[in-house]
Amino acid sequence: MGLDHAATKPHEALSALLASDMEAVNTLITERMASEHAPRIPEVTAHLVGAGGKRLRPMLTLAAAQLCGYEGPYHVHLAATVEFIHTATLLHDDVVDESGQRRGRPTANLLWDNKSSVLVGDYLFSRSFQLMVETGSLRVLDILANASATIAEGEVLQLTAAQDLKTDESIYLQVVRGKTAALFSAATEVGGVIAGADEAHVKALFDYGDALGISFQIVDDLLDYQGDVKATGKNVGDDFRERKLTLPVIKAVANSDTDERAFWERTIEKGKQDDGDLEHALELLNKHGALEATRKDALAWAAKAKSALEPLPDHEIKGLLTDLADYVVARVS
Amino acid sequence: MGLDHAATKPHEALSALLASDMEAVNTLITERMASEHAPRIPEVTAHLVGAGGKRLRPMLTLAAAQLCGYEGPYHVHLAATVEFIHTATLLHDDVVDESGQRRGRPTANLLWDNKSSVLVGDYLFSRSFQLMVETGSLRVLDILANASATIAEGEVLQLTAAQDLKTDESIYLQVVRGKTAALFSAATEVGGVIAGADEAHVKALFDYGDALGISFQIVDDLLDYQGDVKATGKNVGDDFRERKLTLPVIKAVANSDTDERAFWERTIEKGKQDDGDLEHALELLNKHGALEATRKDALAWAAKAKSALEPLPDHEIKGLLTDLADYVVARVS
Repeated sequence: MGLDHAATKPHEALSALLASDMEAVNTLITERMASEHAPRIPEVTAHLVGAGGKRLRPMLTLAAAQLCGYEGPYHVHLAATVEFIHTATLLHDDVVDESGQRRGRPTANLLWDNKSSVLVGDYLFSRSFQLMVETGSLRVLDILANASATIAEGEVLQLTAAQDLKTDESIYLQVVRGKTAALFSAATEVGGVIAGADEAHVKALFDYGDALGISFQIVDDLLDYQGDVKATGKNVGDDFRERKLTLPVIKAVANSDTDERAFWERTIEKGKQDDGDLEHALELLNKHGALEATRKDALAWAAKAKSALEPLPDHEIKGLLTDLADYVVARVS
Repeated sequence: MGLDHAATKPHEALSALLASDMEAVNTLITERMASEHAPRIPEVTAHLVGAGGKRLRPMLTLAAAQLCGYEGPYHVHLAATVEFIHTATLLHDDVVDESGQRRGRPTANLLWDNKSSVLVGDYLFSRSFQLMVETGSLRVLDILANASATIAEGEVLQLTAAQDLKTDESIYLQVVRGKTAALFSAATEVGGVIAGADEAHVKALFDYGDALGISFQIVDDLLDYQGDVKATGKNVGDDFRERKLTLPVIKAVANSDTDERAFWERTIEKGKQDDGDLEHALELLNKHGALEATRKDALAWAAKAKSALEPLPDHEIKGLLTDLADYVVARVS
């Protein structure tokens, strides 16, 4: 995540403003991740949920509902739903990526095994599904079912697209919508829907979540090539070593000459990497202005997120959501 | 599955009776397993769906709906939903069991990789979720959400229970409800619910599916120790070699003396197996009448399935469902 370096922290301000709702979400999460019969479930989940993260997605749901004047109880269920879906996808991602670390701690697949990560992920998906059914809103169910399909489709697309130099910016965007933005936009949209907001406001919330999520992921991908390990918790070049074709490389490949293309084919498509390859990759990224162009894309999506908020009523939360969009890109501004 | 040795085949009679609905289910499945963006998805799914299986679960949904006089379109959606959930769990099971074969063909995790199996499984879960939302029935959604949670919980429970000699018959039953019966009972129950059947009829359908599923799984576990590889497609002793504590072994362990318990501890809990151990295990199973007692349990659950049908209206399908319960245990009668 890594939203933690700037002086102003809008997610903390949001968290403080929504403190009692967030407390209710945490209680519900703890209650629902339990399993009477299978103690492995809360063990694995507690490891992940205990590792923190900023609960950004459930906070977006609570913020959207409150911004739209909701006074019922179900925004809490939806916020917990969104966090369970997120946690389930993290468990499955760690199996798929064969990761050993997440949020600075060993991953569940390492501490237990891949089996537990797959099955506990499935359990959390089912629990999220139960929570959303409790809201009694078919429209909310429709939104979350569609978001789940977009997430899964994006993840599968990434499997085949990540190491294929034919992957262009439009495919990258589909993958990013799947892996990140679909849950952000569903999180904000269902907050508006449960509040019975006007269609224009629901659309504004969707668009905000979508653009915020895309911006968030682009920043993540950019920092992988120019981040500071202390600030981001990521080592420069992880994506390169894992042969992930992210936006900076896609831009450099699009501008490559024959020799450069051969370099990307060898290192990304074939995965044959030697000492000095990361340094050469960084040179090519700089030569073609790929990092700068990626940074501009991130800023443009953040700007789009902010302008999406315009139709929404004036509210303290609206200001904080604007700040949040600025904050997401502050690390690369 | 292995429902294919007897002269009368009630699932074929059911399939013939429900042919036009089954056709509609197949069309819907093919339509919905497609993905515009990620060609890996239909590849993997077609491999599994193409491998056949008897579509027993969707057939149960169609049968239940028709038995209750349903005339709308949504039993087809629900049947496809149930098959998608089943296919998704198979994909994840093969990863968890590290299987190399299913239905006589290499598994998807072997042909592609574990990643594809995990993510395509997630995709099918999402697609099933979209299909059920289309029915517009919150009660159906509630039933399927609860069934999904029971399935996932049963699978996780099996991870820890399967190699633990403390696992008793009640834990075995929980695991079996999770891995098999929960989807059978949900399949029959939602058929009744979508038809707007009386509560007594809905309960009868649930009870039938539950008992049928349990009987089905017990037969499967029994055949693992006394099956004929030609008839069942299973090698005798697979569960023993995979250290799965199924009902026959649970019964033998419950009656074991000190030496026998040490044998089970070594072979199942510690997984230290030598030549001749399977033969010795079979001796112990026979000595304590564990296979015979397991067979009686399977027959008792099949009888329970049949008597559960009593409250339901007279109908050709009711007779076929009775035959189906007999047929499931015919392999061990």
